Formats: sequence, C-alpha cells, structure tokens
Amino acid sequence: MTTGTTAPHKFINKITPGETINEIYAVRDPILRSTSRGDLYIAMFLCDRTGQLNGRMWQATETVYKALPKPGFVHVQGRSELYQNNLQIVVNRIAAIDPSKVNVEDYLARTSKDCDQMFKEIVEIVDTIRNPQIAALAKAFLADKDLMASFCVAPGGMKMHHDCIGGLLEHTHNMLRVAQAILPLYPKLQADMVLAGIFLHDMGKTEELAYDIAFSYTDSGQLIGHISKSLLMIHRRAEALRAAGTPIDPEVVDALGHIILSHHGAYEFGSPKLPATAEAFMVYYIDDLDAKMDQVTSAIDGEMSESNWTAWQNALQTRLYRKRIE
Amino acid sequence: MTTGTTAPHKFINKITPGETINEIYAVRDPILRSTSRGDLYIAMFLCDRTGQLNGRMWQATETVYKALPKPGFVHVQGRSELYQNNLQIVVNRIAAIDPSKVNVEDYLARTSKDCDQMFKEIVEIVDTIRNPQIAALAKAFLADKDLMASFCVAPGGMKMHHDCIGGLLEHTHNMLRVAQAILPLYPKLQADMVLAGIFLHDMGKTEELAYDIAFSYTDSGQLIGHISKSLLMIHRRAEALRAAGTPIDPEVVDALGHIILSHHGAYEFGSPKLPATAEAFMVYYIDDLDAKMDQVTSAIDGEMSESNWTAWQNALQTRLYRKRIE
Amino acid sequence: MTTGTTAPHKFINKITPGETINEIYAVRDPILRSTSRGDLYIAMFLCDRTGQLNGRMWQATETVYKALPKPGFVHVQGRSELYQNNLQIVVNRIAAIDPSKVNVEDYLARTSKDCDQMFKEIVEIVDTIRNPQIAALAKAFLADKDLMASFCVAPGGMKMHHDCIGGLLEHTHNMLRVAQAILPLYPKLQADMVLAGIFLHDMGKTEELAYDIAFSYTDSGQLIGHISKSLLMIHRRAEALRAAGTPIDPEVVDALGHIILSHHGAYEFGSPKLPATAEAFMVYYIDDLDAKMDQVTSAIDGEMSESNWTAWQNALQTRLYRKRIE
Amino acid sequence: MTTGTTAPHKFINKITPGETINEIYAVRDPILRSTSRGDLYIAMFLCDRTGQLNGRMWQATETVYKALPKPGFVHVQGRSELYQNNLQIVVNRIAAIDPSKVNVEDYLARTSKDCDQMFKEIVEIVDTIRNPQIAALAKAFLADKDLMASFCVAPGGMKMHHDCIGGLLEHTHNMLRVAQAILPLYPKLQADMVLAGIFLHDMGKTEELAYDIAFSYTDSGQLIGHISKSLLMIHRRAEALRAAGTPIDPEVVDALGHIILSHHGAYEFGSPKLPATAEAFMVYYIDDLDAKMDQVTSAIDGEMSESNWTAWQNALQTRLYRKRIE
Amino acid sequence: MTTGTTAPHKFINKITPGETINEIYAVRDPILRSTSRGDLYIAMFLCDRTGQLNGRMWQATETVYKALPKPGFVHVQGRSELYQNNLQIVVNRIAAIDPSKVNVEDYLARTSKDCDQMFKEIVEIVDTIRNPQIAALAKAFLADKDLMASFCVAPGGMKMHHDCIGGLLEHTHNMLRVAQAILPLYPKLQADMVLAGIFLHDMGKTEELAYDIAFSYTDSGQLIGHISKSLLMIHRRAEALRAAGTPIDPEVVDALGHIILSHHGAYEFGSPKLPATAEAFMVYYIDDLDAKMDQVTSAIDGEMSESNWTAWQNALQTRLYRKRIE
Amino acid sequence: MTTGTTAPHKFINKITPGETINEIYAVRDPILRSTSRGDLYIAMFLCDRTGQLNGRMWQATETVYKALPKPGFVHVQGRSELYQNNLQIVVNRIAAIDPSKVNVEDYLARTSKDCDQMFKEIVEIVDTIRNPQIAALAKAFLADKDLMASFCVAPGGMKMHHDCIGGLLEHTHNMLRVAQAILPLYPKLQADMVLAGIFLHDMGKTEELAYDIAFSYTDSGQLIGHISKSLLMIHRRAEALRAAGTPIDPEVVDALGHIILSHHGAYEFGSPKLPATAEAFMVYYIDDLDAKMDQVTSAIDGEMSESNWTAWQNALQTRLYRKRIE
Repeated sequence: MTTGTTAPHKFINKITPGETINEIYAVRDPILRSTSRGDLYIAMFLCDRTGQLNGRMWQATETVYKALPKPGFVHVQGRSELYQNNLQIVVNRIAAIDPSKVNVEDYLARTSKDCDQMFKEIVEIVDTIRNPQIAALAKAFLADKDLMASFCVAPGGMKMHHDCIGGLLEHTHNMLRVAQAILPLYPKLQADMVLAGIFLHDMGKTEELAYDIAFSYTDSGQLIGHISKSLLMIHRRAEALRAAGTPIDPEVVDALGHIILSHHGAYEFGSPKLPATAEAFMVYYIDDLDAKMDQVTSAIDGEMSESNWTAWQNALQTRLYRKRIE
Repeated sequence: MTTGTTAPHKFINKITPGETINEIYAVRDPILRSTSRGDLYIAMFLCDRTGQLNGRMWQATETVYKALPKPGFVHVQGRSELYQNNLQIVVNRIAAIDPSKVNVEDYLARTSKDCDQMFKEIVEIVDTIRNPQIAALAKAFLADKDLMASFCVAPGGMKMHHDCIGGLLEHTHNMLRVAQAILPLYPKLQADMVLAGIFLHDMGKTEELAYDIAFSYTDSGQLIGHISKSLLMIHRRAEALRAAGTPIDPEVVDALGHIILSHHGAYEFGSPKLPATAEAFMVYYIDDLDAKMDQVTSAIDGEMSESNWTAWQNALQTRLYRKRIE
Repeated sequence: MTTGTTAPHKFINKITPGETINEIYAVRDPILRSTSRGDLYIAMFLCDRTGQLNGRMWQATETVYKALPKPGFVHVQGRSELYQNNLQIVVNRIAAIDPSKVNVEDYLARTSKDCDQMFKEIVEIVDTIRNPQIAALAKAFLADKDLMASFCVAPGGMKMHHDCIGGLLEHTHNMLRVAQAILPLYPKLQADMVLAGIFLHDMGKTEELAYDIAFSYTDSGQLIGHISKSLLMIHRRAEALRAAGTPIDPEVVDALGHIILSHHGAYEFGSPKLPATAEAFMVYYIDDLDAKMDQVTSAIDGEMSESNWTAWQNALQTRLYRKRIE
Repeated sequence: MTTGTTAPHKFINKITPGETINEIYAVRDPILRSTSRGDLYIAMFLCDRTGQLNGRMWQATETVYKALPKPGFVHVQGRSELYQNNLQIVVNRIAAIDPSKVNVEDYLARTSKDCDQMFKEIVEIVDTIRNPQIAALAKAFLADKDLMASFCVAPGGMKMHHDCIGGLLEHTHNMLRVAQAILPLYPKLQADMVLAGIFLHDMGKTEELAYDIAFSYTDSGQLIGHISKSLLMIHRRAEALRAAGTPIDPEVVDALGHIILSHHGAYEFGSPKLPATAEAFMVYYIDDLDAKMDQVTSAIDGEMSESNWTAWQNALQTRLYRKRIE
Repeated sequence: MTTGTTAPHKFINKITPGETINEIYAVRDPILRSTSRGDLYIAMFLCDRTGQLNGRMWQATETVYKALPKPGFVHVQGRSELYQNNLQIVVNRIAAIDPSKVNVEDYLARTSKDCDQMFKEIVEIVDTIRNPQIAALAKAFLADKDLMASFCVAPGGMKMHHDCIGGLLEHTHNMLRVAQAILPLYPKLQADMVLAGIFLHDMGKTEELAYDIAFSYTDSGQLIGHISKSLLMIHRRAEALRAAGTPIDPEVVDALGHIILSHHGAYEFGSPKLPATAEAFMVYYIDDLDAKMDQVTSAIDGEMSESNWTAWQNALQTRLYRKRIE
Repeated sequence: MTTGTTAPHKFINKITPGETINEIYAVRDPILRSTSRGDLYIAMFLCDRTGQLNGRMWQATETVYKALPKPGFVHVQGRSELYQNNLQIVVNRIAAIDPSKVNVEDYLARTSKDCDQMFKEIVEIVDTIRNPQIAALAKAFLADKDLMASFCVAPGGMKMHHDCIGGLLEHTHNMLRVAQAILPLYPKLQADMVLAGIFLHDMGKTEELAYDIAFSYTDSGQLIGHISKSLLMIHRRAEALRAAGTPIDPEVVDALGHIILSHHGAYEFGSPKLPATAEAFMVYYIDDLDAKMDQVTSAIDGEMSESNWTAWQNALQTRLYRKRIE
C-alpha cells in the first residue's frame, strides 16, 4: 500500500462518479454501525480544503474502527459512487497517516499574508493604547501565549470571509490598520476603545471554531457563540487583573463588552445589543467593511470564467461585475 | 412646611394643568443649569408609580441643588403648567424627605403575592434537582444571600409584564410551577435542566434594572443586557465551585448557558442564539406563556371602562376583549 | 408474479440507482399520456411512508391504465434509474393489490400511543366543561360518530409535527392534558373556553387532509384551509343545536370561533385574526409548545447518526444538540 | 333650552379650548362612575362626522344617566377644556334628542353617488351570470331584503377608503364595472366567478361594522372579521338552497369561498389563504386598485391647502403630489 | 456531417444522461482553457428555448475556438453525461451554423399575438393623447425607428411573465387597452399621463435585455436596470425636443419620470420612489395585474399533468388550482 | 414698528403659549383663504433653524397677502396661542424684511468647517484621478461654477446627518479623506472609480433640496430623488463631453452610474440596484460610516442634559451612551 504523495493531491471537488480512489483525506466523525443483517460498517466524512464527501466502509471490523483517528488523516483506497443522487466514497482499505507526513495546505486553506509580521504589527498598535486600564486588559491577552497561538491560526469565519488558517489574524490586523488610518478624521471618538474593541471583537472564535483538520464549529461554539465567548474572556481577564491588584473599572469592561456584543450591528445577525456608543458604531462599520471587501474581492478573483459577471452570490443577493474599467 | 402624608397621595397621572402641588415625589436626574441671562435653575424628573413629569425650579441656588438626593424622595411645593404642550411642575420649594417616612407603595408597584412563600417554594423545587452538578450550580445561587435578596425584590420587566417589586420572583415562581405541572407530559426532556434554566434565566435582571426609587435601567444593564449578565453570573459561580473542588463540567455550563442565551426565542428579541435543545425550547415557551398571561390579564383588569374592549395594546397589535362568556 | 410480502418492505428512501424493483407501493395521480411518436405511457407517483418517486411505464395500454387504482396499492416490477438527476422507477409490470393484503404501517406512519385510551381521556376532559352552551357544542362533536372516527385517524400535520395516523388525536389529547395541568395556575382564565377551544381548534384538519393512502391536501382543504373549515363546523353545529331547541348564544360561538381563527398566533402563519382574549393566547401557546416539542424530540430521536448534532432543521433555523447532559 | 338647529353645526374638529358648547352630538358608551369622594359622574364619547371627544358630566345622577340613549343623539350644553393635554367637553346639561330631528349628514358621511342607481346596476350585472349555481347563490343574496338594505348603507371601511354611508355599495359597484370593462381582455378567466366574487367579497362588512350613529366595529366583527363572516354567509345560503332543492356543488362554494378568503392578497392583511386561482388574483387586484384610487383621490381633494403636496399619508408611506399637469 | 434539420429539434430539457447528441444549439460564453496537464479544452453553454447545459470539448484547438460564434448557433455532435450530479454535453465536433438556417422558434419563444396589429393599436392609443407636450414626447419615441423595432421584439421579462419575443409589446399593448377600458371610471385621473406612462414604463428593457440568441441581461442592464434606463431615455428625448424648439416643461418630464421610477410599487422590487400621484398608482396596478394574469394563466396552461393543481409557484408562494368550475 | 434685531433672536422652539411675539421669521407657503363668514385670513408657516409653527393672520387683506415674500423673511408682531393642542402664532402685523438685514445663521444651521478649504482639498483629491475619462467627467463637474456654488452650500440631508448649510460639502470632503486613507489597504480596488463615485454620489441633492430660507424638498426632488438626479447629471455631462470630442466610454458611465444607484446599499433605502462591484461596496460603506459618525456624535453633543444617555434615537433604535471612559 503506497501513499502516493508524490502525485498531486486529488481534490474532493474534482472527483466524479466511478473513479478509483487512492488518496489521503482528513476523516471526521467516523461511526461504527451495524446493518439490518447485523454486519458492521463504518460511516465517516472524508474531507480536504475543497469540500467533503460521505465515506462508507462495508464489512468493517471493530479493529479497523478503533485504529481510525477521530479526527485525523487517513489513506483511503476505494471507489466513488452515486448514492441517492449524492456522490460518496466506498472505502475498501483505510489506514491512519501521521499528520507530519501530509501536506496540510491541501486540507486547510491558509492566508497568503505573513503571520509573524501581522502579529508584530498588531502588538505595535496595541502598544499605542494609552489608557492604563484598557492597555492592561489588552496586554493580558497578548501575554497569554496559548491563546495568541490560537489567535494566529484560527480562521476568520466558516464560509463567508477570511475562511482560512490565519484568517482571524489577517482580518483583525487589517481592521486595526483601517482604524489607525481613519481615527484622526473622527477626533471625537475614544481611539483606545476602538483599537482594543477591534483587537478583541472576535477573540471568541478561537473557541467557537475547530480548525485542526477541517473547519467546523465546536459544540460549545455552536451553543454559545463567539460573541458571548469573547465577552466571557474579557471578564475572566479583568477579574484576574483585579485579583492581581490592577484596578479595572466595571465601566471600562462594560464599554468594551458593549462593543463586542453589538459589533454585528443588528439583532438578526446575532448581536444581543445594538451599537449605542460612537466607538461601537465604528468597530461595527470597520468589521463589516473589511469582511465585505474580502468576500467581494475573493468572489471576483475566485471565478475562473472569463465572464464579466461572477455566479450569483447568495449572501450579497447579486452577481458581481468583474470587468476592470480603469 | 408640612408633608401632608395623612391626605391620600396625589398621583402623577391625575395632575391637570393649573393645580397647586404640595406633595412628595421621587426625584431623578436633577441638573443645575443656567439660563441665557445667567440665572440658575434646576431641571429634574418627578415621579411616582403612575408616571413622571418634568420639574423646573427657577431662581435656584447651588445650595438647594446640593441638598437634593440624586435620586431620592422630595417634598415639592409648586404648580402644574402646560409648556410646549407638555405638562410640567414649576417648583417653588423643594426639600429632601427621609425614605423611611414615605409610603413606598405609592412610588413602586409591588406584587400582590406572598414573597416569602414564593421563595420557599422555589427553594423546594430547586431541591428536586438530582443531577449533582446542576444542583450544585443552582444552590450556589441560593446560597448568595445578597443576590437572593435582590432576586426577591427586582421587577420582572420595565413595562410589559411583572413590572412590580417582586415581579421577577413571581414570574420565576410561576414558571417553575408550570414546568413542574407539564414536565411529566414530556418525559424525553431533561427536567433538571429545565428547572435550573428557569430558575436562572432572568437572574441578570437584578443587575440590569434599578428599582430602589423608580424602575430604570442601570448603565451596565443597558450596555450589556440581562441575558449576557445571567450568562456571566453562571460562569462566575461555576469557576468558584471548581476552585472550591466541586467538579462542574463545561458541557453542563454550556447547556445551561445556551438556555439563557436563547430564551427570548428569536434574534429580534435580543437572543444571540436560537433554541437548539428541547430544554431551551421548553424554557422559551414557558417564559413567553407566563409573561403574556400576565400582560393580557393585567391589561384586561387594568381598564376602568365598562367597554367590552381594552384600549389598543401596541405590543400585542390588537385590542383585548374583556367580556366574560362563561 | 409473486408479491413477496414475506420479505421486509423495500422502503422508497433506501432505493439506489440501478436496483431491480419488485415491491408493493401506493400509487397516486396516474396519468395516461402519449409520446411525441404516439406511443402511450403512464406517469405516476409511487410512495410509501418514507417518500415518493416518479414512476414511468412505457408501452402502456389503456387497459393497464384503467385497471389502476387512483389512488391505491400496486405491485410494481421494474428498475430504478436516474433521469435528469432524479431517481425514478421504470415500471415493467404493475397490478392492483387489495388494500387488505398490505401492511398499512409501511405506507402511513401511525402514532405509537393507544388511540382508544386517548379518545376516552378526551371525552372525560370534555365532560368537565360546566358552561351548558359550551358543553352542548363540544358534545355535538363527540356525538358525530363519523367525524370522531376521522378525528381519531387524521394526521396532525403534513410534515412538521404529528404527521402520522392518529396524530391529530395525539396532539389534541396532549394539549388538553397540558391545559388541565396549568389552568389552575391561571385562575383568571375561563377554563371551559380553553378546553373547548383546544378540542376543536384543528377539527377542520379532518377535511383539509387526505390520509387513506398517503398524506396530502384535499382540493377543498387547500382552497379553504383547516382554520376556516373548523369555524364552519362550529357554526353548522351551533345552528343545528338551535334548530333543535338548545340555546347557543352568538357570543359563545364568536368567542370559540375567535380562538380557532387566531390559534396560529400571527398573520404570516395563516391566522386571519390575532389573539385578543386571554383564552385565545393560552390555546395558541399550548398548541405551539406541543407542536414544537414533538418536532424537536422527533428530530433528535429520528437521526441515526452518533453526532452530537442533528442535520439542519430548516423550520427551526438551527441544528439541534442531541447530547444528554443529565 | 333651545336646540339651535338653525345655526350651522359646530363640528368636533373645529372646537378649541375654552369655548361654550351648545350643540347636538352623537353620544357613545356613556358610563356612570363614582369619584373617590363618592360623587357620581358620567363619562362618554361625543361625536360627529369629523371626530370624537371625551365628555364628562360631574355631579350627575342616575336619573340623568338612565335617560341617555346608548348610543344616540343628545343636546349638550357645557364648555370645552384641556385635560392632560386632551381636549374634552365638560357637560352641564344633556338631553336625548329624537334622531328624526337631527341632520344625520352632520354625523355620518354619505356617498355622493346615487344609491338606487348603483344597486340597480349591480342587479343588472349579477343578472349576466350564466352558470346556474353561481347565479342561484348570488341571487339568494339579492333576495334577502334585510341584508340588501344593510348592503346599501354600510360603509366600505373604517378609515382608509369608502368610509361613508353607502361606501360598500359604491366600492362594490365600481369594482363590478371595472371587471366588466376588462374581463373581455382576459378571456381565459371564468367571468361568472369573478363577478360573483366581487359582489360577495365584502358582504361580511354588513355585520363587521356598526354605522347607525357612528362608524365602529361590532364585537363580533372584531373577533371574527368580515372575511370569515362573508365565508359563513355564503355557506349558510348554499345550505339553504340545497335544502330547498337547488343543487350547489361544494366545488362552487369552495372556489367562491377561496376568492373571499384570499382577496386581501397577503397574510399580513388578514387573508388566511393566498390567491391560488386566476379569478382570485383578478378580484384581489380590482379591490386593491379601486380602494387605492378612492384613497388617493380623496386625500388629494380633501386637502384645503394650496400646497403642491398633501400631508404625509401614513398608509401609503408618502405625501401625494396634487398639481395637475395636463 | 449532416445538420439533421428535418427531424424535430431535440430540446435541452428532454436530454437524459447517456444520449448521443447530434443537434443545433445556441452557444454562449465559449471559453478556451487549459487543463492542469496543459491540454486545451473549450467550456461553453449550449441552449435552446427550454434551458441550457454546460458543454465541454476536450482536446480542443485554438482554431476550433476562434471559429465559434460568440454567441451564435452551432451544430454539436457528442454525448450527454452526468458530471458531479449535473448533466453536461461532452462535445466531439462543433461547427458554426448560419442563423438564417435555423428555426429561431426553437431557441426563443415568441408571442402568439400579431405584432403588427398590436403596434398599430398602440400608435392609435398614443394618438389620443391631447396634451401637446406629453404627445410630443410619446411621439418622439414612435418616430425612433430603431427603438420601435427593438420595442416590437424585446421580451417583457426574463422569467416571470411575457418572457418571449414580442413580450414587451404584448404587455404594453394589453396594459394600454386595460387603461382605455377603466379610465372612464376614474375621471379624476389625468388620462394622458396614464397612457404615456404605460407606453414608456418599460422602454428601458430594450437596453436591459439581450434577446438575439437567448434571453439574458446586458452588462449595462444589470448595472443600471430598466427603470433608470427608461428615465434616461425620456430625458434624452425631452432635451432633443427642446433643442429643436418644442417646449417640454420640466414638470411634465418629472411627472412622467415619477411614474417610471415608482411603477414597481415598492422599494423591495427596485423602485427608488413610491407612487405619489394617482396616475402613478394606476400604472403600477395595471402593470401588476397584467403581469400576474399572464404569469398565472401561463402556469395553469403550461402544466401537462391532469392534476387539479400546478406545481408550487415560488414567486406566488402557492400552487395554483387548475380546475374550471363554470 | 421696530425690528428689534439688537436683542437675541427668539427661537421657535423656545416659544411658550401666551407670549407676545415681536420677531423676524422665515415665512413659507402663505395662503389667502376666506372663513365661512367670508372674512379673509392668511395661513402660513413661520420658521427658523429650530423649527416651524403655524401662523394665522385674521382680518387680512389682499394687499397684505400680495406684499408677502413667498418664501422670505418677515417681521411678525402677534401672540402665541394653543389651538387644538398645537402652538400657533396669531399675527397682528406682518411686513417683509430684506434678507440682507437678517442674521441668516438664525434661520439655517451652517457647518462649522471652513468651506473654501474643504472645496480646495476636494479639488486636489479629484486631481489625483489618473484615468483620463473618469478625470474628464469629474472635472466637467468642477468646471460648472453654478453647480459648484450650490454644491458648497447645499445641506447633506434633511434631518438625519449633515443637515446644515455646507453639509453636503463637509460630508463629501470627509468621505474623500476616508477613502484616501484606506484605499492603500485595499489595493485590488479601482481607486479612481471610488474617488469619482464619492465626489458625485450625492450631487443630485443640489436639485433635490431647497435651502435658501429653510430646508425642504423641491417638487422635482420629491418626485425623482437625488439618486436618479445624480445619474442624470452624469449622463448629461458625458454626452456634452462626447459632443465636444472627449471620448467617454459607456462602460465608464455605467460603472460610475452603478455606484450612484447602489450607494444606499439596500432597496428599502431607495437604491434601485444593490452594490455589485467592489468599488460600489466601498462607497456605500464609507457613506454609511461617515453619516452615522456625524449622526451619533451630533446626538451625543447635542444633548444639554448631564445624563449618561441621550434621548431615544428612533433612527438608531437605541439611546446613546454619552459617558467618556478614557
């Protein structure tokens, strides 16, 4: 059984019915079941960065099942078939693969920007915060090595924008740069609050999303959501700072917390509060602007056709015009 | 200057233009300002349980202003006037009154039920919770004397339902009794989770609302909201229990937290998550049923007319039919 | 040609492309058509409790067509094929089957509860109604043997909840038990009106839905709807009672009728009136609660996966969390 | 005490604070109450075609109260006053007036068209219906003298359009003429069904609205609505015709009933069914067109200003441009 | 290679997987691409009046690509296949066909009405306009031969109604006849404005839509829309008339322009202004009525089934009842 | 009769009932009417920057009426009164005032920024546009002296944001500066298109709004709207440039026109097209951000109270938190 890693990866979205499969995929949620006749089989999802398919291994054994990573990478041999109008992979042989031996890029998209450089610039911008309490809170996050490691790899979203490894970092970094550029034009705003609000607004995504093998929601993320998780993270750190003798006024935490809670800008997008401070409005607008710019330019660049228009974009309720005028 | 407490209280909603005023009211948000000519005056709100009016004291002094409670009770002498089509009270004399000397019932409505009895029954119902972690969490709230004192006096809402001292207690108590009555009919549900969810679902209202002199939102309550505050309260107690050696699984806290976050049932009512467990749906329905029953029967009983119909109820988008058929 | 009823039924949702079919299905809407070349063929739907597929019999004759039940049960021999991305059954032989010979359970889901027992309990609850006019109206329904026979087998809905034979009975029975349990907690409500309103609220579904071979809407049901049909049924019986000398006040009929018309709770769900009495609100909430509890627990139990989450539930706009905590 | 009927009527909407009142008004909902001191007073509404005001008679007696019509016309002597920012009439003397002695036109607006002529034309149009069952149903309505008398005086609506005595007749008449004019352009439609549908679409307004002294909803009208009442009327007559030996197919009643139920065109306007036949769409469009033309031209003509624009029209979400171009 | 035009056209919506294809189709958006191995292939859409499919020609050459019309008609030889659950045509040979040799009716639906006759009647109706400025404007359009040629062939819409060659003419013609029939019933309206408004309301569709080979949006049409294009056309002609010495008051152009802008009747349907004149309301209602009558009767006639109901109509949110009663 | 201009202006929103009025106001829409007795009177609006009141002059003459500016400034002597709960001014003497003699600032709010400096900076930014066609179009606007004069004084809106003389200039200027600051962060966007789109996006407001005496909509503005007017302005100039020999591609005009049409971002805000290019999204976001920042900071600064919260902001559906944290 050879792993065939020298050949280019056969991507999930390129598989057609009736192909012989001999490839490494990520496996998720494998389940051992028995048919009505009592035979054992394994149901699973097989995925890479381009999508996922159902996998079925008939005549399976508990030994095979137990040897599977849950989740992890596996070498799959089998065949693609249509079943009830859905493509699936019938698996004949399956074996766990050491993650160090796979090209992770094939399984998870990754930002094209330099993560170290972006994180460095974020630290520099956070360093400009002058209000001592806001600065202390923000730096408590920077000081949490594990969290910052997650922050640098988490995706910015599941599907809509910045849906890649490092996407959360890229989105936060770009929002901070936009804020730096336009805050001088709105001198009435409390700049420290805007910068800290941006830095922390999506921090809960590090807990809401799983992104080791494929992008998905954690159970906790789906039940609670990144907005509430970000709020909890701020409160936990504020309490720790107070316990350590650093005063953090409840008003500071509430003003920051309000930015977190309201940054989706509308109830129907999951914000339990509408923006009620100038700073909350600013963070909401910069978030929306940066997310949409990524979504729109990705959709325009992502099309391989030579048409002047992209396919219909459901989230934007329009097709996008791709032709450059200038 | 006599306080005239032996006469019945002159309620705000009974004042007509041109009356002489000699009465005790709650004062809120008094502000010292100067007119364009440089004279000082005091603007304030004067309130009781039936409403509030603007008060204006012309030719005021800093001494008078400083002596005012902010907020508190005051004896007001003056006259009612129409100003730009709004009724206001022109204040000639004003003096702080010791709260112990006023009949608080005139200023804040109070539930007609027996609060001690209701709290006792709540404790009994919470005692039926058998899951040790859920029970430990619920009892950590019962053990917090200060919080329970607030829980027993806080209103259930600002305007719509249970808007009285003890209203939160009455609403929670009635919801728990409804749950006890119908849980046997839905045996698939996890009863402990429903009961704990109801007990805690609005606990954050103790921090969201101020209810000492008149009902209002606290700053923190308006910025964060009772839903997120309830979630924070649960997490704080779960961490304290863990620190004290009682295991509380994150899954338990997330399932309870999810009930809290989703109990308004829809994004547009401020829930950042939609119900996604059978227990969350049950708590949402019982909450809505009990709130609406209070709102509807209060509106029907509250009308003094002999008409078969109440006035238009904006929140219900209908008038209510008052005639009894049976 | 053998019917093969000893083998387990091959369910519609288990058929894959390219299978040989030799099975009994319900047939609906068979139509005789001619191809562009002038050959006759029959188009039909073939169904069981798990779904339906298009069936096509090429080279058909008028004799075969005339022999088909419309609708009814048929023994089908043929083959499954993909056509324009939809699975269909190409029929080689088809023959009518006596309904008495099929296992009806395979074609129509049936409640797991004891229908006789449920109906007996409904009669007992209706017997508690003390207002003579409301009691007379309700008992006029109980006395209508044909209607009660339909009431005991009709489904509670097409797809969303209680979509099984006996579903209307089960839903009505459970709602009445919920009402009995919580009415003592809301003493201001007119209990007789709530109980009669629940008993009658969906009675028009006996005319709106067809449920002999498969669940579908009748023409009349689709044009008029069960809400208006229930109202008409009440008026018809009230007039019959009056003609027989039993006084039934228009006010009683209007109050009951209002509960019927408003029990969907919102215009967008087909109620032409919004609830305007406390009793109408109560019936609306109990209906919604019981329907959702059935829908949610069925979705949770209905999944065969071991995942913590169900598939996306479009009507609830969420996936459901299946993991039990307690 | 003189009734002063020779002077022009002092209209409600022309009364200013501080006027002496000596005029005939319609009285509605008079109630005898006692003040906190135990004195009796009467609260009532005083109305004419231009609006209504609260009336208060202090130091009233049971004798005076019992002598009042409920509702009816009264001669009022008193004075207008502002009370809590609302204008009211303080009544010193009040006495019932024989309706035959008042100029009813001052109290209820009346269509400017010739009612006898309009009804005659409606009868002629209904006579063109050729389908015997539809014709029999429509003529059963024409044969009901009491109902036709109501049909000729009922208003077409409360506020929005045709809100005058004879308004229902005028609206129905005009819709029938529009249908006659355009049905030849849509030959696929079943003209009989459209004409009968228009004739009957709002018949329930004769029961929904009260219009003897002032326009208001009846209790039954508010609980049930004219749409459901119209449906009930059709069914009642269909059953009477069948009992008398005239066959009326359920399909005919359902198709007509569907037009009634769906003629508001959308759930949010109180239709429990959306149009699902070409004829139902046609009736919905003609109803909407004729109602809006009346509403728009009345708003344009009703303004006394010389401005090019009317006041804001809330139901239309715009101001209307009044300048004629041609 | 024979074109096989004597056999009936094989329509796109009748192709099943695995068929041999030897037929003429319209080709759109052909693109020359290279595979990962460097081989050239052509991607294209192949269409007729019943739909479109993806076409793929592997092992293509630049010569073949350059010879293709973009767009135009082609003779295609190849085979139908399922690819990722979508039917596509694998093309072996492809050759341009002279449009004069194809039966255009197979590729673009055409109105069944007589276009010359309809245009003649439109000219006659426009001739009845008496206001000299409105008449001058309308006739400036009639005098534009190229535009009128487009006006007589453009479709009335992409999918919903009058989606055929001549559809715009048919829709405009029928609306004008409806207006002629009912304007006498609404004498307060300015008839000239209504007639001119109808004549011009969709004129921009001649620029918004492309309809030579298949119906599609032009780039300019999709960016700007027919509503704004119609407005621009009116202004351009008004300026030309003024330049030529014919006075056209801005008020006339604004009133006509307002009808154009508001004729979709609601913001969500793309009208930037809501109707604010009686004439604008009339044009909006007649447009909606005529469009819906076409949509509903086409859906009812278009079904080949013998069912009493059509398939679900998504735009109408209902199925349609097809059974004739009369 | 003295004009009293040395005393501070008595602002409309400071007038209480029963005051003697001797002041200069702007007069709008004066109308000469006759009472039912045949006496002539004048109805008018009297306004300044703080609001407007109805004015009534009884016993007026045609001579007085004819002497009034329509609109303009007048010296008014009279008295304030409540009439039907609305404050009005009963005018005894009225006389036209030369506009040069009034302090225009009292009647129309004016931006606090330096208009010459802002316009100079706009010219500089427009000068950075390098695409020759886009530059030519933008400069054709700069070259129109009359239009630029209007552009420099027109308000940015009626009520919501930048509602002051010079507001359009200030809003456009700030948007251009925001774009300059953030365009480098979004290098995929066509910067020239964004800058020209911003410069022209609201140009039609110069025709939509009247702002000489008070802010109001012009007839043409209300019928057509500034969005469509801006589009017309671009087309007019493009045609003039082409006539003068400067090539302007239709694609350039359409791409710019699309930005104009879509810049409100949603149908319900009056955009007939949704953004479909990256540049259109950017202009929409910058417009919304700058408008909201003005609206929010104005609301926060505009309150004179010392409360932590502003009054309810209906357009934002919240109160705003005013307390500064930093």
